[in-house]
Amino acid sequence: TGSFKIRGAYSCLSNLSEDERARGAVAFSSGNHAQGVAEAARLLGMSATIVMPSDAPAVKCAGVTSRGAHIRYYDRFTESREEIAREIAEETGAVLVPSYDHRDIIAGQGTVGLEIAEDMEALGEATDALICCVGGGGLIGGISLAFGELSAATTIYAAEPAGFDDHRRSVALGRRVRNAASGGSICDALLAEEPGAMTFEINKDSLEGGLVATDAEALAAVAFAFRRLKLVLEPGGAVALAALLAGRVDLRGQTVVVVLTGGNVDPPVLARALKL
Amino acid sequence: TGSFKIRGAYSCLSNLSEDERARGAVAFSSGNHAQGVAEAARLLGMSATIVMPSDAPAVKCAGVTSRGAHIRYYDRFTESREEIAREIAEETGAVLVPSYDHRDIIAGQGTVGLEIAEDMEALGEATDALICCVGGGGLIGGISLAFGELSAATTIYAAEPAGFDDHRRSVALGRRVRNAASGGSICDALLAEEPGAMTFEINKDSLEGGLVATDAEALAAVAFAFRRLKLVLEPGGAVALAALLAGRVDLRGQTVVVVLTGGNVDPPVLARALKL
Repeated sequence: TGSFKIRGAYSCLSNLSEDERARGAVAFSSGNHAQGVAEAARLLGMSATIVMPSDAPAVKCAGVTSRGAHIRYYDRFTESREEIAREIAEETGAVLVPSYDHRDIIAGQGTVGLEIAEDMEALGEATDALICCVGGGGLIGGISLAFGELSAATTIYAAEPAGFDDHRRSVALGRRVRNAASGGSICDALLAEEPGAMTFEINKDSLEGGLVATDAEALAAVAFAFRRLKLVLEPGGAVALAALLAGRVDLRGQTVVVVLTGGNVDPPVLARALKL
Repeated sequence: TGSFKIRGAYSCLSNLSEDERARGAVAFSSGNHAQGVAEAARLLGMSATIVMPSDAPAVKCAGVTSRGAHIRYYDRFTESREEIAREIAEETGAVLVPSYDHRDIIAGQGTVGLEIAEDMEALGEATDALICCVGGGGLIGGISLAFGELSAATTIYAAEPAGFDDHRRSVALGRRVRNAASGGSICDALLAEEPGAMTFEINKDSLEGGLVATDAEALAAVAFAFRRLKLVLEPGGAVALAALLAGRVDLRGQTVVVVLTGGNVDPPVLARALKL
């Protein structure tokens, strides 16, 4: 599905009872969790409805419908996706699949952390620091739990788009704070309103702090990944790399893992990154 | 360097004597072997001159000069790169680093085969078939040697651009035959004139046969890799995938390894593949 979100979605849906599966799934997402839920539902023979913003990238909308799921579009600035999803769940009996604040979702995303720890052990390397992009905090929360067991000495940093640095500010204050904006960043995958209640219980202690990358820095990281790593990244999936390349933290001489999380970029955005 | 060519180049240059290293390296290449030699020379503190066609992709030329090597351009249709390189070697004493017909080059590229065999064993899978793109035959020759020891039951196919199917025809005839054209394919990385003498001694027995992909099919494979695999490929690096997607061989039900070999694509070519 072009991002890690299938891990949490499959973890969550595969733990449902047969009766719950028969009722179908509903979720809200700008597109990566959407595709993860759509694919997990398809694999498990479930129906799925995804509430997506009307400005979601076309590549992500196509990835949802091509997997047989239904899209209910909403206006990011005037409607509440949470309310719409709740209404669908009430009307149809469908199970709401949250995008981060759920133990099965966090456990599924945490397999990223398990695999990093295994790979680094196979390389004979200790991870001094890890940088991971953050929306609602499910992925970094799962990685934090895995690293707490397997690589407890690693310093973990959240990376967020400028204007959506709720984790940076929340970790610094020790309590959850919201973002002022609800849209307008090129990093569509990372625009949660605030840290999740469950994920923040993990992340408030596990994170060293937060790093911020601007839209221009995210696009520069997309171009770097294209030219040097030969990897296709979307801006939100490149924010951890962007923060490192922009020098937001000095990790010279350290062994650093940078988590790249999604590649569902619309070609015009890539063209903008590559200045075509 | 965005392709496998560093493997053979480093294998070759690191086996030179100190006296040979001091004389520098010279090579001819449309750009991937060029970057491999440039990087291997940089790592070993050697000077390097690369003979490149004047229509080589800009991204490859930049990758050579940024590594400190010198480029001597030639006209693909009126000049002989072999002659130019020989002249440079004679005038300067530089060691000519061939792009495929050399035991150290074949051994270096063959590490691709060793790694595939190791990875497949770790997955607990047997490889029924393998498809690999072919220019001069060094990579597929090295893979054939590795698989001869580690996975002898695998059926190996060469994939070539339309008009440059010298391996397909040579394997069928049991003797080396040349291509009529010397340019004009979008797969700039695979435009050797004929199979190498040394590589053909390996490949004439190890290859089941050859598959052909057109320019349009290579571009479609570049787009598939971008959209579905989130990998950046150049057309030449995508020819094995292109031949499979185009249905040139029926491998349904089999476990198939497809070797993707280079990602040094000029952005306008990617834009053409994605129909931007």
